Amino acid sequence: MSSFQYLKPTGSPFVDRHVTRFSDIVKPWNEQEIVGVGIVGAPLSKSSISHSGAHLAPSTIRKAFSAFTTYSIEDDCELSSFEIQDLGDIVMHVTDIVHSQDRIYKTLSEIYATNRKFLPIILGGDNSITYPSIKAFSKAKGRVGVIQFDAHHDVRNLEDGGTTNGTPFRSLLESNTILGENLVQIGIRDFSNSKFYRKYVDSHGVTVFTMKNVRERRITEMIDEALQMMKGQVDVIYVSLDMDVVDQAEAPGCPAIGPGGMSAATLIEAITYLGEQPKVQGLEIVEIDPTVDFRDMTSRLAAHVILHFLKGKARIK
Amino acid sequence: MSSFQYLKPTGSPFVDRHVTRFSDIVKPWNEQEIVGVGIVGAPLSKSSISHSGAHLAPSTIRKAFSAFTTYSIEDDCELSSFEIQDLGDIVMHVTDIVHSQDRIYKTLSEIYATNRKFLPIILGGDNSITYPSIKAFSKAKGRVGVIQFDAHHDVRNLEDGGTTNGTPFRSLLESNTILGENLVQIGIRDFSNSKFYRKYVDSHGVTVFTMKNVRERRITEMIDEALQMMKGQVDVIYVSLDMDVVDQAEAPGCPAIGPGGMSAATLIEAITYLGEQPKVQGLEIVEIDPTVDFRDMTSRLAAHVILHFLKGKARIK
Amino acid sequence: MSSFQYLKPTGSPFVDRHVTRFSDIVKPWNEQEIVGVGIVGAPLSKSSISHSGAHLAPSTIRKAFSAFTTYSIEDDCELSSFEIQDLGDIVMHVTDIVHSQDRIYKTLSEIYATNRKFLPIILGGDNSITYPSIKAFSKAKGRVGVIQFDAHHDVRNLEDGGTTNGTPFRSLLESNTILGENLVQIGIRDFSNSKFYRKYVDSHGVTVFTMKNVRERRITEMIDEALQMMKGQVDVIYVSLDMDVVDQAEAPGCPAIGPGGMSAATLIEAITYLGEQPKVQGLEIVEIDPTVDFRDMTSRLAAHVILHFLKGKARIK
Amino acid sequence: MSSFQYLKPTGSPFVDRHVTRFSDIVKPWNEQEIVGVGIVGAPLSKSSISHSGAHLAPSTIRKAFSAFTTYSIEDDCELSSFEIQDLGDIVMHVTDIVHSQDRIYKTLSEIYATNRKFLPIILGGDNSITYPSIKAFSKAKGRVGVIQFDAHHDVRNLEDGGTTNGTPFRSLLESNTILGENLVQIGIRDFSNSKFYRKYVDSHGVTVFTMKNVRERRITEMIDEALQMMKGQVDVIYVSLDMDVVDQAEAPGCPAIGPGGMSAATLIEAITYLGEQPKVQGLEIVEIDPTVDFRDMTSRLAAHVILHFLKGKARIK
Amino acid sequence: MSSFQYLKPTGSPFVDRHVTRFSDIVKPWNEQEIVGVGIVGAPLSKSSISHSGAHLAPSTIRKAFSAFTTYSIEDDCELSSFEIQDLGDIVMHVTDIVHSQDRIYKTLSEIYATNRKFLPIILGGDNSITYPSIKAFSKAKGRVGVIQFDAHHDVRNLEDGGTTNGTPFRSLLESNTILGENLVQIGIRDFSNSKFYRKYVDSHGVTVFTMKNVRERRITEMIDEALQMMKGQVDVIYVSLDMDVVDQAEAPGCPAIGPGGMSAATLIEAITYLGEQPKVQGLEIVEIDPTVDFRDMTSRLAAHVILHFLKGKARIK
Amino acid sequence: MSSFQYLKPTGSPFVDRHVTRFSDIVKPWNEQEIVGVGIVGAPLSKSSISHSGAHLAPSTIRKAFSAFTTYSIEDDCELSSFEIQDLGDIVMHVTDIVHSQDRIYKTLSEIYATNRKFLPIILGGDNSITYPSIKAFSKAKGRVGVIQFDAHHDVRNLEDGGTTNGTPFRSLLESNTILGENLVQIGIRDFSNSKFYRKYVDSHGVTVFTMKNVRERRITEMIDEALQMMKGQVDVIYVSLDMDVVDQAEAPGCPAIGPGGMSAATLIEAITYLGEQPKVQGLEIVEIDPTVDFRDMTSRLAAHVILHFLKGKARIK
Ligand SMILES: [Ca+2]
Ligand SMILES: [Ca+2]
Ligand SMILES: [Ca+2]
Ligand SMILES: [Ca+2]
Ligand SMILES: [Ca+2]
Ligand SMILES: [Ca+2]
Ligand SMILES: [Ca+2]
Ligand SMILES: [Ca+2]
Ligand SMILES: [Ca+2]
Ligand SMILES: [Ca+2]
Ligand SMILES: [Ca+2]
Ligand SMILES: [Ca+2]
Repeated sequence: MSSFQYLKPTGSPFVDRHVTRFSDIVKPWNEQEIVGVGIVGAPLSKSSISHSGAHLAPSTIRKAFSAFTTYSIEDDCELSSFEIQDLGDIVMHVTDIVHSQDRIYKTLSEIYATNRKFLPIILGGDNSITYPSIKAFSKAKGRVGVIQFDAHHDVRNLEDGGTTNGTPFRSLLESNTILGENLVQIGIRDFSNSKFYRKYVDSHGVTVFTMKNVRERRITEMIDEALQMMKGQVDVIYVSLDMDVVDQAEAPGCPAIGPGGMSAATLIEAITYLGEQPKVQGLEIVEIDPTVDFRDMTSRLAAHVILHFLKGKARIK
Repeated sequence: MSSFQYLKPTGSPFVDRHVTRFSDIVKPWNEQEIVGVGIVGAPLSKSSISHSGAHLAPSTIRKAFSAFTTYSIEDDCELSSFEIQDLGDIVMHVTDIVHSQDRIYKTLSEIYATNRKFLPIILGGDNSITYPSIKAFSKAKGRVGVIQFDAHHDVRNLEDGGTTNGTPFRSLLESNTILGENLVQIGIRDFSNSKFYRKYVDSHGVTVFTMKNVRERRITEMIDEALQMMKGQVDVIYVSLDMDVVDQAEAPGCPAIGPGGMSAATLIEAITYLGEQPKVQGLEIVEIDPTVDFRDMTSRLAAHVILHFLKGKARIK
Repeated sequence: MSSFQYLKPTGSPFVDRHVTRFSDIVKPWNEQEIVGVGIVGAPLSKSSISHSGAHLAPSTIRKAFSAFTTYSIEDDCELSSFEIQDLGDIVMHVTDIVHSQDRIYKTLSEIYATNRKFLPIILGGDNSITYPSIKAFSKAKGRVGVIQFDAHHDVRNLEDGGTTNGTPFRSLLESNTILGENLVQIGIRDFSNSKFYRKYVDSHGVTVFTMKNVRERRITEMIDEALQMMKGQVDVIYVSLDMDVVDQAEAPGCPAIGPGGMSAATLIEAITYLGEQPKVQGLEIVEIDPTVDFRDMTSRLAAHVILHFLKGKARIK
Repeated sequence: MSSFQYLKPTGSPFVDRHVTRFSDIVKPWNEQEIVGVGIVGAPLSKSSISHSGAHLAPSTIRKAFSAFTTYSIEDDCELSSFEIQDLGDIVMHVTDIVHSQDRIYKTLSEIYATNRKFLPIILGGDNSITYPSIKAFSKAKGRVGVIQFDAHHDVRNLEDGGTTNGTPFRSLLESNTILGENLVQIGIRDFSNSKFYRKYVDSHGVTVFTMKNVRERRITEMIDEALQMMKGQVDVIYVSLDMDVVDQAEAPGCPAIGPGGMSAATLIEAITYLGEQPKVQGLEIVEIDPTVDFRDMTSRLAAHVILHFLKGKARIK
Repeated sequence: MSSFQYLKPTGSPFVDRHVTRFSDIVKPWNEQEIVGVGIVGAPLSKSSISHSGAHLAPSTIRKAFSAFTTYSIEDDCELSSFEIQDLGDIVMHVTDIVHSQDRIYKTLSEIYATNRKFLPIILGGDNSITYPSIKAFSKAKGRVGVIQFDAHHDVRNLEDGGTTNGTPFRSLLESNTILGENLVQIGIRDFSNSKFYRKYVDSHGVTVFTMKNVRERRITEMIDEALQMMKGQVDVIYVSLDMDVVDQAEAPGCPAIGPGGMSAATLIEAITYLGEQPKVQGLEIVEIDPTVDFRDMTSRLAAHVILHFLKGKARIK
Repeated sequence: MSSFQYLKPTGSPFVDRHVTRFSDIVKPWNEQEIVGVGIVGAPLSKSSISHSGAHLAPSTIRKAFSAFTTYSIEDDCELSSFEIQDLGDIVMHVTDIVHSQDRIYKTLSEIYATNRKFLPIILGGDNSITYPSIKAFSKAKGRVGVIQFDAHHDVRNLEDGGTTNGTPFRSLLESNTILGENLVQIGIRDFSNSKFYRKYVDSHGVTVFTMKNVRERRITEMIDEALQMMKGQVDVIYVSLDMDVVDQAEAPGCPAIGPGGMSAATLIEAITYLGEQPKVQGLEIVEIDPTVDFRDMTSRLAAHVILHFLKGKARIK
């Protein structure tokens, strides 16, 4: 870099020549066609019902990439054969939230149109990004099935506050972007939803696995059931992960924390398994607010989620 | 409220017309006879051996009521049929701790005397409130059995510091307010008690389930055993929950935190099951210090405890 | 309140019968015509360029009212003769920021129309509320002069982000709501503005007192100069206080903190003096973000600002 | 200490052979008669009206002793000729606050009785320790004059909460322990007291210097005025320092913080000057709550106060 | 202590005459031969690759000793028959890290030479202390087997940064201080190591149990396997515990936190079981950074680890 | 950057087309000869006597560059004519502190040798970097005069800990790198030094301005005195700023905080004045530990120091 031996760009980390950090294989996008996994940030959180700093999560998650390596000792598998493009963040408007959501839709649509073999990992932002994200995904990919991990249905009415982090799945269903039969919600939690909206998702044929199901059944079994249902009905599957599906003790940095959630281990098992499914062609992680987290724990968990998703993908190869 | 469309009392939260928050069904007491569940705060913590802000917990727990809804998706049950009266807090004296404890006794006694069908949920405060609380309860209700969740026996001698948060069960036993045979302690933890006091509770016939028992047996089975023992011996059962029974990772806001505790899930299972028992007619939650908690996690757990207690009660109806 | 001697609504503070707290004389609005000083919250901060929790400031400032009394020992003056109405907060839309700003304009306009003798104290929120607030004020009151305390000019262009907390004075000038000659900016700071915008305000005839002026001259002298200039030109004067005019050591809870600012003592002196001027008929306090403050220090300073403004008003009587 | 060269008691600090830390000259009391300055902790804060951890201040202030040296470069004076005895803390009762206050009175009385040449520095604890402390002091030393630094009069009525941190000077006046003419209050602050209590202290002939006086006059001049008044009226003078007399920006760790206070520099100047007065034979520092402080700043200031008091004393020698 | 009834050394805790705290049986070393368990601090963390305050852990762990008692209710066993010597801390050099490591080696060597029946518990510090510690141990005790709990192999090359907290086991293997066959690594975690170093440990015959093994098998079974392997190969066994083997939710105070780790309960089970093995004659705990911990949780866990290790030892007696 | 309109590298800030941020004119070094001001980070803090994260300050100071603009409204001066090269950070060795100090010396020496018109601003790191930094500076520039702002002399003996943050000026004096007559220490504080070291600097002819001098005299007058003394004796002047010269209330992020320090305003005045002196050809800022700061306040002050230094330089042009 510099002509002086010991002079490096600021913040250069310690390098061990025999270790590849995950951050080492995530490269700034070279403006060439993207084949395989890439990362896009959607730093929108002004759309949240409660005060949220979730727009800062793309930065903290990327920072957590340097805390982990590319080697799965459990699979004896090196992920460094993947080359991952980081496309950067979609720039949000300061005062026009609806326009920001539209920028997400438009930008992703354009990317998908010109990069047909691109498998996106979208870093939110709050859950409101899900609607434009899946709308763009579906326009490009055909019939979309969605596996949603969330403590909440997220099908609030649109009258009380517009398109917020509480409404994405309502927008998706009502616009017929996805069909209720092709939506599976996992981790829905006691005392975190209302009967009205439970009925709403039922009436649309959405499949719901509550935390009671998660406590009593094996997660891969439920996912198999979901995959079986969608078989033949969808062209691709998109995984939507609202990190508040995880218990407050293990994901303390979500806006809406509480007890009674999924363990991080169960989530990791699920994500790895979903990674193994060839039809799973998109992943988003939303609702991490780094300003209220403890030591970026929740962003570190997000980095692990991505790594295990790739580990699943590596099992296919 | 106001004659101007957009003007509301300060701090008005976002309202979704199809969601009932738990806070929506907890009403300030209307000074009529209370039938069913009601809430009373006992904000005393100057009686604690170590520095404690537990007197602030009634406020933070009530604040957590607005973070959760009244709908149990697991039972498909709406708690909004319950109407819960919030009687407010018992006012503590600034410098006379013993008088504060007496105010708790007197106020609860008077309430019970005039509200025979009132099922109290008492929010501490520290564990010293347990003695006046159960004394008043027992005066009104007859023979009382107690299921205590706690890492500690709480039967310290009274000479070394008076009636503190370490002594309530000694006071109850020595005053014959409750009999040792009708006291069941669950969650007693290694290296958190002394042999002397273990012998003391044994000599009074108290039943002790240690954390070893909790790890090895099913919690509902131990509770069944306890209920069986008390059958015919007591008129009502009072549940005393010292939140430090839960592990430090899941209840980080208790004064005396440590590893080796009960999981929040086990506690919730136990409380729900106890709620189902018609004889269980009182619940208290103590030893949450919001000034050392992380994001009110422990108060949020307390709100879940209350919701699951009500869910248990709803199963009876 | 309650029929039981020691039972009070939760959170009831200690009462000394011989002390009036400021919070004691701030009453929820009784829906009658308001004569004199009243408070309105404008909890908008999604309009901020950087992540801001300024919408929470109306709550923390009101909470600070209970930390102070109504007695000025320096003037030997009791403010309890004032009765202050708290009108509450204007409700913000979740996703439509421009509509939120319009709600501020409309609500204040309606209030001013029906309460001609009302002297408003507006609690922001971020600085974007200034445009709708002064627009409504000016519609009701005639020609308005503005004394602005701020480290920044706040006349950014509107193309780069819409009507943000960086643009209110541009909107006011360009809409001719106020004339540049009737705008006085005090406390403008080195390395916190650009030459382009300095020229912009100059070209509009705005009077600027930089921090160099503040360090070298007496604050009341500069205010006298300002008042002299506006004499005959304006019907009323509105004081706009962006708390970041104060140095970071004394107002640590503003989004844009830095060294080189005004001392709190100088600000208090200025505000008291402005309170004494009969033409000063409005005050707003903006840009306090309680989520990054230390022990609500900046909100406590805001409460002192209000108290000294009233002390100034009391000197007129 | 140990027979192994590099083995030391835990937490042993770095030692520079040419530097004496203040902690080096503060020795645990050797149970011999104490001649000169000594330190006693009075860790009582359950007597506080608001939640306070002031009982922890004796520890944090002592810890701050090791952050500073014994050399005043301004006076070119070494304090290491002083040998300062640390008598330890008076043990507080867990639940009997009045008894704790009595322990302070009794212990100090006994110490003064057997150590006639002892000049005490008392570390609170909250301001309620002032009454037993000065009562003991006055019993041993004769007519006592008090210079009180405080934002507040501290003469609340005793009915509303007993003998709290708001009442010590009322107790002292009403018990005739000190006469109003011999009490001087410095730093009394706007909007922090009530007219009723201002009249109360006036009626007792107390001298009051408000913050207005402090801003406008030289602090040593006001102290001279106070000393002149007391001349011939008192045998000894006791300095009572409630750290909240200092502005919130410089003493952020007091329970009742606010703007408008004295600067730390003015306080240090005052204390040094008082140290120089032979009649000044006692000093107490109260109302520091380390649990809400920032980096023990306020305890560090307390250590500086003690050092400058000693510097004043050294000037007499 | 003092001749005045209520005067005690500062910070004296509340004492219940019937409770023995763990801190009560840990005595400063009396300079006599040590028989049995003793404690030595090795407060070195400048050797860490990332910024670490692990040198502060000996203090916080010792402080946690007073939070727990000596009574195991699960075993009905009193540990107070143990008398534990606290030898203090090895003093580190300010700027010569290699010399600091050498001080650890030399001091421990000398201690072991003169105290043949001493069973050391070493409190780090970072993991770099492991090399000098085991080198000294092995010199004194013969062939050493090591059970290492760690998320990481810790066999980095020595060229890239010298002897850091990433290299201890490489140094041990390459110096033949221990043989690869006698090293068992438990808890090695996904995405926290590299393939290169996995091969390195394999090539040395090291036994590795990954977190996958930990999730799927019983911990005592794996330990049995390890003990079986070492049988006849080693004279003594040393347990090296890098606290980051535990999941971030339960050990939040380690420098390198992440999800996917061991539960504290599993660790406690393992340590108790190892304590029961007569050949286990040394224990170290490293990589706790109290400056980033939450409420000293991780140090509290360390205290529990020590208590359960002693509980295991007590089962032998 | 990207071919998609709204896609930008992560963390791209809001841009106002009419505002130049200071960060905008600080460019990564282009490997050409540097003419004028440039920045070099020296992130060493393992050399500190107490635990310090000062190695993180180069990052936080650079981050603060984006919080301020290039326009001085007080001078009506645009700094954007300056182009500032950021050379990056000198890479520190993990375990060899002395070697790290040598890397600082060597790297700066090489830079100065090939960039004769380079005016360095060095960002520490702790104060130990001063010795290698000035040694390199002096080798390149001839006779060096030093204006040191510091609460401490920093001439500790080298036996007790090596070349730490307490020793740089001793090393400089004893190696004759600078002469005592050409060293001026400003801001030396009471109870923060020892008589022994005061005598040491006196014996070397060092000029000392204590905080008493700073309180009583104008800072520019003392600097004039210093410049007058050095006139003819030195070829260039280097300004060494230990940020702990500033009071704890305004520079809360230094390791050794305390009351009684210089105001930030006085420091800024001094630095601006020094910037105006053509002979002042180097500036370093040390002893900021961002891990204990509040909201990067101290790093923000550092950014202001640099801006005002440049403002001084701009006055020369
Ligand atoms: Ca959710
Ligand atoms: Ca969601
Ligand atoms: Ca307990
Ligand atoms: Ca208890
Ligand atoms: Ca501003
Ligand atoms: Ca502004
Ligand atoms: Ca006070
Ligand atoms: Ca007071
Ligand atoms: Ca490790
Ligand atoms: Ca390790
Ligand atoms: Ca210094
Ligand atoms: Ca220094």
